[in-house]
Amino acid sequence: MKGGTCAGFLRERMINNFTWYIPTMVMFGKGLAQKIGDQIASVGAKKIMLIMGGQSAYKSGAYEQVSQSLKKNRIEFIEIVGVKSNPHVELVREAIARLAVTPVDVIVPVGGGSVFDTAKAVAAGAKYNGDIWDLVKGKSPITKTLPVMGVLTASATSSEMNNIAVLTNHKTEEKISFTSPLLYPKLSIIDPELQYTLPERQTVAGGIDIMAHVMERYFEGNEVPELLFEQYEVYLRSMLRCIPELRANPRNYDARAEYAWIATLSHNGSLSYGLKNRGDFSSHKLGHALSLFYDISHGDSISIMMPSWIEYVSKFNPVPLERFTKNIMGLDELRSTFRSWGAPITLREIKVRENDIERIADNVAKLAPMGTIKTLEREDIIEIIKIAW
Amino acid sequence: MKGGTCAGFLRERMINNFTWYIPTMVMFGKGLAQKIGDQIASVGAKKIMLIMGGQSAYKSGAYEQVSQSLKKNRIEFIEIVGVKSNPHVELVREAIARLAVTPVDVIVPVGGGSVFDTAKAVAAGAKYNGDIWDLVKGKSPITKTLPVMGVLTASATSSEMNNIAVLTNHKTEEKISFTSPLLYPKLSIIDPELQYTLPERQTVAGGIDIMAHVMERYFEGNEVPELLFEQYEVYLRSMLRCIPELRANPRNYDARAEYAWIATLSHNGSLSYGLKNRGDFSSHKLGHALSLFYDISHGDSISIMMPSWIEYVSKFNPVPLERFTKNIMGLDELRSTFRSWGAPITLREIKVRENDIERIADNVAKLAPMGTIKTLEREDIIEIIKIAW
Repeated sequence: MKGGTCAGFLRERMINNFTWYIPTMVMFGKGLAQKIGDQIASVGAKKIMLIMGGQSAYKSGAYEQVSQSLKKNRIEFIEIVGVKSNPHVELVREAIARLAVTPVDVIVPVGGGSVFDTAKAVAAGAKYNGDIWDLVKGKSPITKTLPVMGVLTASATSSEMNNIAVLTNHKTEEKISFTSPLLYPKLSIIDPELQYTLPERQTVAGGIDIMAHVMERYFEGNEVPELLFEQYEVYLRSMLRCIPELRANPRNYDARAEYAWIATLSHNGSLSYGLKNRGDFSSHKLGHALSLFYDISHGDSISIMMPSWIEYVSKFNPVPLERFTKNIMGLDELRSTFRSWGAPITLREIKVRENDIERIADNVAKLAPMGTIKTLEREDIIEIIKIAW
Repeated sequence: MKGGTCAGFLRERMINNFTWYIPTMVMFGKGLAQKIGDQIASVGAKKIMLIMGGQSAYKSGAYEQVSQSLKKNRIEFIEIVGVKSNPHVELVREAIARLAVTPVDVIVPVGGGSVFDTAKAVAAGAKYNGDIWDLVKGKSPITKTLPVMGVLTASATSSEMNNIAVLTNHKTEEKISFTSPLLYPKLSIIDPELQYTLPERQTVAGGIDIMAHVMERYFEGNEVPELLFEQYEVYLRSMLRCIPELRANPRNYDARAEYAWIATLSHNGSLSYGLKNRGDFSSHKLGHALSLFYDISHGDSISIMMPSWIEYVSKFNPVPLERFTKNIMGLDELRSTFRSWGAPITLREIKVRENDIERIADNVAKLAPMGTIKTLEREDIIEIIKIAW
């Protein structure tokens, strides 16, 4: 047998118990957005709320397909437009207030991860007698939601097949990820063709986010099972093929499809089964703080913070980086790959002011101690931010 | 980047549309069989039918855990014992007749794939006003089923997380695989510790069946996406690690767990997404005919027929075997690996009579033309059986 023998440092495999339960139906492929109306009608819905971002729903052709399909099925719809990346709680509140006046049967996101996250929050908030931020903060449990049935137009977060939503509250300076088994969408339609018109930088930032979902698990520590390491390497190689292909030709269906499918699989929980801690996610926390203060995409925050985090923690535990270097690429090559795609890799590039370092560190440090490969306290966080500088 | 560049012959990727919808909840890990009663009680069930094979439910400790958990939750149960490998329709009919007198709320398989397949058929037959074989043959559609909530004690077929059941009818000389979206179990508990007491030959035969589920897709033809090829290779390497580890120590939890989880993932549909034909499955059809006439396990039928099938079809299309040889092992090494595990690799070993060759070929030929890598007619089937001789 060639390759794949157990790594020498492997100590434990498939150690923790887990539950797999993903009740989402995913319809994947060409031309499927036109089916959304039939699917919504099949659950008996008469009236829905459409949630969208900016121009992309129109530019991609998704709005046209979805609205025609709804009309064909005589489904009434109201629209909430204007979801931004790093979606805000304000728009969620606005949508919930509108539902109090005009109730609907289903929430229908047409957009990327931010739009799906917003839809999930609206679906939960519509059934809660209080402010949505209580649910986000876990002060009240989510006990009931409206069904979410959506069309994905930008892949990255796997929100279309997971039970997670991330919301930002500028007033409280918080960006919080919340979960509930009730937050799985009932239906997600993924048509890779709807992603042909995405700006190149969004394809790159999304791709880096997808890689980060894999790498947060790859760099969990020493106890990652060989099976999962190999799985992660398959996904990382896939993204390293697809992103350059899509920069060269954004209408390459095969690369769009593979990119989209890896995105969905990378953060729907399936890469965590058997893992001790279900991933490290320090890079995400560092990135969240950054995008809270600066108007940058989640992916850009990751391309800056992730290599710095790896560089720092590998001083304490070099094992995962050694494997990564051998099987994928070295850390310098990773940085230069991100740069060759046009992604930022230093804080200076995105014009972070030096005296904001402490403020960012303070925000992240609210979550300290954090991390699994190395426990991070405030002083560690400062060091990582300095490397990223 | 090391490795994983696109294979030269790769022409298309992620070409076909697909739907992912697996409503099964899988609880995976140590000590979980004790939770079955709570789970059954949570859907409001008061009375269930337990379905089991022979001694393994007792020997593994599964029966003890399940019956105590049911009693603790005050759930009444009736028992059907005696499911055989390659399960017969007769026992299914017997169970359905019993349900006509004593109705239950849930069907609870405690066993391996054959027990789960039997439970699925009983769950469908109990709600059908006619003979179960009509549903198997597709003469009537499956429109309603009882919920199936089970405990797996032998991994191989993925019946615990798919919508497939295979039944044998000796009277009509048929072994038929039937599917319906309603055949997904509602709950499957997979505790690798319950598989510690499996006989070595069952671990080997099951492991070869799992490898076959991967290889039927690996050898589909030239249009397998690079992503899936790499995925298949991860799974095959995993089984090539686990099987020898379990022969050496059947109580190796890590190897049991990895084996069990790969089994579940290998035939729950997820390895077919994006694939043109969702796998070849000629080896399975050849194996089904063999186990119809001889009392051998499904895995043994595969260890004989699969290498012969690969040898034959590779004359017409050498490409997948070339990749397999480079990344996993050559065909001779595959045969000697199966033999080193104690599995049969020729028909003579299992005492097939030479004048049965035509009879077996006739049975398989009912399904001809079949196959995707090479279309097989009756004369091809004869050639494959001769190689297997």
